[in-house]
Amino acid sequence: MSFATIWEPSELKRVASTEGVLVEQLQRLLDAGRVVIPRNAKRAGDSEFVLKAVGERMSTKVNVNVGTSKDYANCAEEVEKALVAVRYGADTIMDLSTGGNLDETRRQILKEVTVPVGTVPIYQAALAQVGERAVVDMNSDDMFTAVRKHAEDGIDFVTIHAGTNLVALERLRRSDRILDVVSRGGAFLVAWMLHNEQENPYYAEYDYLLELAKEYELTLSLGDGMRPGCIADASDRAKFIEAITLGELAKRARAAGVQALIEGPGHVPLDEIEASVKVIKHVTDFAPLYLLGPLVTDIAPGYDHLVSAIGGAVAGMYGADFLCMVSPSEHLALPSVNDIKEGTIVTKIAAHAADLVKTGQREQARARDETMAHARKNLDWDRQLELALYPEEAQRIRADRPSESDACSICGDLCAIKLLREFLKK
Amino acid sequence: MSFATIWEPSELKRVASTEGVLVEQLQRLLDAGRVVIPRNAKRAGDSEFVLKAVGERMSTKVNVNVGTSKDYANCAEEVEKALVAVRYGADTIMDLSTGGNLDETRRQILKEVTVPVGTVPIYQAALAQVGERAVVDMNSDDMFTAVRKHAEDGIDFVTIHAGTNLVALERLRRSDRILDVVSRGGAFLVAWMLHNEQENPYYAEYDYLLELAKEYELTLSLGDGMRPGCIADASDRAKFIEAITLGELAKRARAAGVQALIEGPGHVPLDEIEASVKVIKHVTDFAPLYLLGPLVTDIAPGYDHLVSAIGGAVAGMYGADFLCMVSPSEHLALPSVNDIKEGTIVTKIAAHAADLVKTGQREQARARDETMAHARKNLDWDRQLELALYPEEAQRIRADRPSESDACSICGDLCAIKLLREFLKK
Repeated sequence: MSFATIWEPSELKRVASTEGVLVEQLQRLLDAGRVVIPRNAKRAGDSEFVLKAVGERMSTKVNVNVGTSKDYANCAEEVEKALVAVRYGADTIMDLSTGGNLDETRRQILKEVTVPVGTVPIYQAALAQVGERAVVDMNSDDMFTAVRKHAEDGIDFVTIHAGTNLVALERLRRSDRILDVVSRGGAFLVAWMLHNEQENPYYAEYDYLLELAKEYELTLSLGDGMRPGCIADASDRAKFIEAITLGELAKRARAAGVQALIEGPGHVPLDEIEASVKVIKHVTDFAPLYLLGPLVTDIAPGYDHLVSAIGGAVAGMYGADFLCMVSPSEHLALPSVNDIKEGTIVTKIAAHAADLVKTGQREQARARDETMAHARKNLDWDRQLELALYPEEAQRIRADRPSESDACSICGDLCAIKLLREFLKK
Repeated sequence: MSFATIWEPSELKRVASTEGVLVEQLQRLLDAGRVVIPRNAKRAGDSEFVLKAVGERMSTKVNVNVGTSKDYANCAEEVEKALVAVRYGADTIMDLSTGGNLDETRRQILKEVTVPVGTVPIYQAALAQVGERAVVDMNSDDMFTAVRKHAEDGIDFVTIHAGTNLVALERLRRSDRILDVVSRGGAFLVAWMLHNEQENPYYAEYDYLLELAKEYELTLSLGDGMRPGCIADASDRAKFIEAITLGELAKRARAAGVQALIEGPGHVPLDEIEASVKVIKHVTDFAPLYLLGPLVTDIAPGYDHLVSAIGGAVAGMYGADFLCMVSPSEHLALPSVNDIKEGTIVTKIAAHAADLVKTGQREQARARDETMAHARKNLDWDRQLELALYPEEAQRIRADRPSESDACSICGDLCAIKLLREFLKK
C-alpha cells in the first residue's frame, strides 16, 4: 500500500528536508506504516498548515492536550492554551473538550492552529446523550457519527480505543490491578461493554471505521484504554494484550490505506520503559508510538510534567516517536495557560534529549549542542542565548544576576574556561 | 579495614533502619567501601546531626551546592539557600563559596545545617593568595592547609581533585575536546600543573592527604576535574583515565581507613549514561558514585535542573548513588533562593524515581507509590496530598481550579475511576 499519494511531491520533499532524511526513505517509511503525516483531506489545500512527520527516524514530536471540562468550559481560554503550546514548540494539539460547546471549541482551535489537530470523538458521542447514564446509553451509530463529524470539520487525527475490547476486558477482570482503567475514553468503552454486554463497536465494526478514515484521510491514533495508571500496574497482561490487538488493527489500517499510530502508557517505572517500548514497537510492526508520559513515579503531583519528561526522554531513547505533554496539574485539576507553557517546554527538552540519541536524528540534533559548546568555550553570551531552546528564561536569569566579569556570576574570573584558555594551549 | 568503629552501634542501627537494610549488611558495605556515612569526628557528639548513608542499596541521596561568588558575596543568603535546600529534602549541602568572607560563610552554614556539609578546599587555597595569578601561585602547603582548616571547622566531606594529574592532563592535551575543563577545581589544578610544571600535590602527596583525612574522619569526595562539559565530550579518554586513577585512590583510601566516594560527570547523552556509570562503578570497586547531572543536552539553559533530573534518574537506575542538584541558573548566574528550591525538588523526584528501581530500595520506595495509587482509586484527596512529595504545590493547583464533583476538574463526573467503580465489580 502506498500512502505517498496523500501528499504533493513538493510537500514530501519539504518534510524530508526538515527531518534530514532522503525523500525516498521517507516514502518507504510511510508505505511501511512506520511514519505518519497526519492531515485531514479537507486541510490539503491549506497553505498555512505545517506537515509533521511522526515515527522512525523522524525527530521526536510533542503533542499538547487542551480542552474544556464540565467545571471549566471557556472556549477562548482553550484556544489560548493551544496557541501558547504551539508557540513553545508543540507539534500537534489535541482538543479533549468535555464541557460547554464542544463543536465551537473544536472549530475555533482548528481555525487558529496551523499544526495537526486531534480529538477523541467518543467524548462527544457520550456527551450528546441526555441524562445521567450517557456513557452507556450511546449506541454504535453515535460513536461513528462523532468520528464523522470531527472528520468533516477537518480534524487530522483521532484517538479511537478500538483495542479496548472484550478480550482485553477479560484480562482486566482476571488481573490484580489497583487502578483498573484510567484512560477516560477507555473507561467509557469498558463501562459500555459491561452495561450493554456487547463488543466495543470500534473493534466490532473496525472495517467501517477504516472506510470512514480513508474517506477523510484521517489518521487513526489507536488508543490504549488499558494504559496502566500507577507504577504497580505498569507491565501487566491487560496492557500487553491490548498492544497486540492494536498491532493487528494497525496492520489492517495499513492494508486499507489508512495511517495509524499506537498510543502507549502511562505510569511505568524507569527499568520497565525499555521493555514496554520495544514490545509495543515489535507487536505493532514498528508503527509510530505515541506515549503519554510515561510517568516514572506516582507521588509527585504538581510536578508530573517533570516526572513525564524523565519517562519521555527514556522512552524516546528506546524508540517512542511522539510524546504527549503531561501538565503540572495532571491528577489535580484542568491545566492553566501557564501549566501548558511549562509542560510544553519540559516535554520539548525531553524530545530533544531523545533526538540526540535517535537513529536518523542524532547528527542533526547534535549539531546544535555542539554549536552551543563552542559558544560556551568562547564565552559568547549572545550566541548562547540564540542557541538556547528557551532563550527568554535564560536571558531573565542572566539579567537578574549579572557578573562584572565576561564570564558568569557563578565563578567570575575563576571561570574554568577562562583559566584553561590562559594556560592550556593545545 | 573496618570503618564501623567511626559510628556508635546505635547510630548504625538507626541508619540501617532508615534505609531498610540489616545492620550487618550495612557494616559489610561500609567495610567494603561501597557505602559511606560522612561525618567529621568533631561533629560526632552533635545530637542534632543527621547521618546519611550514601552508596549501594541505600536510598539515592541528593546534594545541594550553595555558596558565595565574587559577584554575590552575601553570607546570610547562602545560609538561607542551605536551609531551604534542607527543607525541600537535600541530604547534604556543599558550600562552594568563592566570594566575601569564606570562613564566616562556611562556619555559619555548619552552624545552621544538621546534615553533612562538604566543601572544595582548593577554592580557599587559591583565594588566600594575593594578586592576579592566585590559582597558580599557591603552593602544596596552601592546598593542604585549606583542607586542614575545613576539617578543623567540622566539615564532613571534601572534594579533592586528586585524579586530575599529569597522566590525565596528557590525555586532555591529545584529545579533541571542545570544552577542555569545566570543573572549577579541576581547572585550578590543570592551570597549576601547567604553570608550575609539577604533579598535582593532592596526587603526589596523597598519603599525607589520607593521614589528614583519617585524623578528622573526613570523607574524601574524589573529584572529576576532567568532567566533560558538553555532549560532544561526554565519553572520552581524559574522563575515563581519571576515573581509573580515582579507583586506585579510593582503594588506597579504604586501606588507610578513610571513607571515599567518586565524583562523576557532567554532560552525557542519554545512551552513554549506562556505560559511563557502570564503567566508573567497576573501576572504582563500586565506591559510592556522586554525579553532577548528568545533563542530557547542552541547549536548555534556564531549565538545566530539569535536564539534570532526566540524566540523574537514568544514572540512578544504572547505579549512581548520590545526585548533585543542578539549578535552573546553571551556566548562567549564581542561583537565587528560588532556583535552589526548584532544583532541589526536581532532583529529589529523580532520586525517588531511581529508588523505585534500585536494589535494596525498591520495595520500600514502591510502598509509597502503591499507597498513592490506592488513594487515587478511592478519590481520597486528603490522603493524596499527604502522600505527595511536595504537597504545597499540589494543594495550590487543586485549590486554584476545584471541581464541583468529588473527582478533579479535568474530568469531573466523567472520571475513569468513578465509571469503573460503578460498572466493573471485580
